[in-house]
Amino acid sequence: MEERRELIEAGLDTAFSPADPPEVLFQAMRYSLLGNGKRLRPLLCLATAETFGITAEQALPAALALELVHCYSLIHDDLPAMDDDDLRRGKPTNHKVYGEATALLAGDGLLTHAFELVAGPMAVAPERQLLMIRRLAHAAGPYGMVGGQQADLLAEHKDGTLAELEFIHQHKTGALIQAAVVIGGLFADISSSQKTALENYGSLIGLAFQMMDDYLDVVGSTEALGKTKGSDLRLEKFTYPRLVGLDETRTRAVHAVKAAEDELLRAGIQSAVLNAIARFIVSREH
Amino acid sequence: MEERRELIEAGLDTAFSPADPPEVLFQAMRYSLLGNGKRLRPLLCLATAETFGITAEQALPAALALELVHCYSLIHDDLPAMDDDDLRRGKPTNHKVYGEATALLAGDGLLTHAFELVAGPMAVAPERQLLMIRRLAHAAGPYGMVGGQQADLLAEHKDGTLAELEFIHQHKTGALIQAAVVIGGLFADISSSQKTALENYGSLIGLAFQMMDDYLDVVGSTEALGKTKGSDLRLEKFTYPRLVGLDETRTRAVHAVKAAEDELLRAGIQSAVLNAIARFIVSREH
Repeated sequence: MEERRELIEAGLDTAFSPADPPEVLFQAMRYSLLGNGKRLRPLLCLATAETFGITAEQALPAALALELVHCYSLIHDDLPAMDDDDLRRGKPTNHKVYGEATALLAGDGLLTHAFELVAGPMAVAPERQLLMIRRLAHAAGPYGMVGGQQADLLAEHKDGTLAELEFIHQHKTGALIQAAVVIGGLFADISSSQKTALENYGSLIGLAFQMMDDYLDVVGSTEALGKTKGSDLRLEKFTYPRLVGLDETRTRAVHAVKAAEDELLRAGIQSAVLNAIARFIVSREH
Repeated sequence: MEERRELIEAGLDTAFSPADPPEVLFQAMRYSLLGNGKRLRPLLCLATAETFGITAEQALPAALALELVHCYSLIHDDLPAMDDDDLRRGKPTNHKVYGEATALLAGDGLLTHAFELVAGPMAVAPERQLLMIRRLAHAAGPYGMVGGQQADLLAEHKDGTLAELEFIHQHKTGALIQAAVVIGGLFADISSSQKTALENYGSLIGLAFQMMDDYLDVVGSTEALGKTKGSDLRLEKFTYPRLVGLDETRTRAVHAVKAAEDELLRAGIQSAVLNAIARFIVSREH
């Protein structure tokens, strides 16, 4: 895992040439891209590809694209018009350092460049590459993450149903995490039952991840999280702890991760790393 | 041209299903996507493809993607943190109607969905499709439009050189207009001299378009423009009229368009429509 992480960090570090004009834009993109991320999405993509015999280097451009999309979403999400957060990954948010206009553009730039990366030269059939791009766009766009963010905003200061909460979580966070797994699988020739297992594994750990995010926002520390604790409460977000309570949130996350591991097992997918990532999701403190 | 425009409008109208949740997001995207646009970029894409024997229907997904990217850029550009405009295409700007958060997300959604469209099923070799995606991302991203927007913001309230002004214009507006032409050409098997001619034609009309935009911001009417006249002056933007004067701006635009037509002529590209679009750019009143 540590080796994969270094590969990802090195890839992110060279995704842009820092001296290109306008310099401040590239600085702002790199400010949010480099540093303290968990790199969950690129790690999932590489781990899935490697499970089926693909090298990490081969899948790297897609993995990096996933992290660029994730970073863009954090920058836009932190903007004053959205969640208005001051702290992210242990440092001031992008707009606190570069101002709102540049932060907005840095987000736009990261999102757009992700598609340049994933459409670039790759050792995979071009038809497969097109499927990856489509999946990335679908998971990140209005039918995925962007739709989830909108639903999340609409649900503030309100009580809702479990179905509404699941819509928010599956779209806001789940879709991109699931896409990371599925895109990793698209590098290899796998059976349709393996494909289904990856879809389900991705969906379940995505759900567990957001449940734990809600949980940690209550019980975690600002220091460990690298973002301000209690921000859901401040914004009166509609979360799992609010709907089902703290303990039940954690219990459900643990169950979802167990179910995710079972999915892999049933399809005969043996991957110590995918299982380790699933377990990390419910044991993490940040 | 009128027929092509109808094809584009119909395509944009069905790009999203309006009843999908969260409804307000899809409404906001459609609010800015439908209505009074010139549709310059999709028209250029279709016209170029048709010049080389491709049907408009075949090139339509790429044409629509270009318009989605353009519309996203207008929404984000109009936000209070950016140019803070109230009027666009003859109606209130997106954030005036839907609020800043939804406008931000509507822009993000349009940009992301553009890549889903251009990566979708298309009657063209997948290798070509990947080149189109890469070109679109490059022209729209930090090395293109996003970089140009950043440079445009940095140049406010300042005097600069012609080289700086050209950087802004080529990136902010020129790159995507040029990409529209080049992507249209990627549908067909064309010679490398034809390719070069399309690159040059696209670059020249892109430059002329932005010069005329600067010009019309001074001499046009708010009613005809559909956006508030004099907004460059208000923001002390660095424009052609400011650097070389009003008359010289128009003269240079006319020259650029003449040079663009010459590029096509020299490469033996006969296209009444591409010539008509070039001339429209310097005769337009909005």
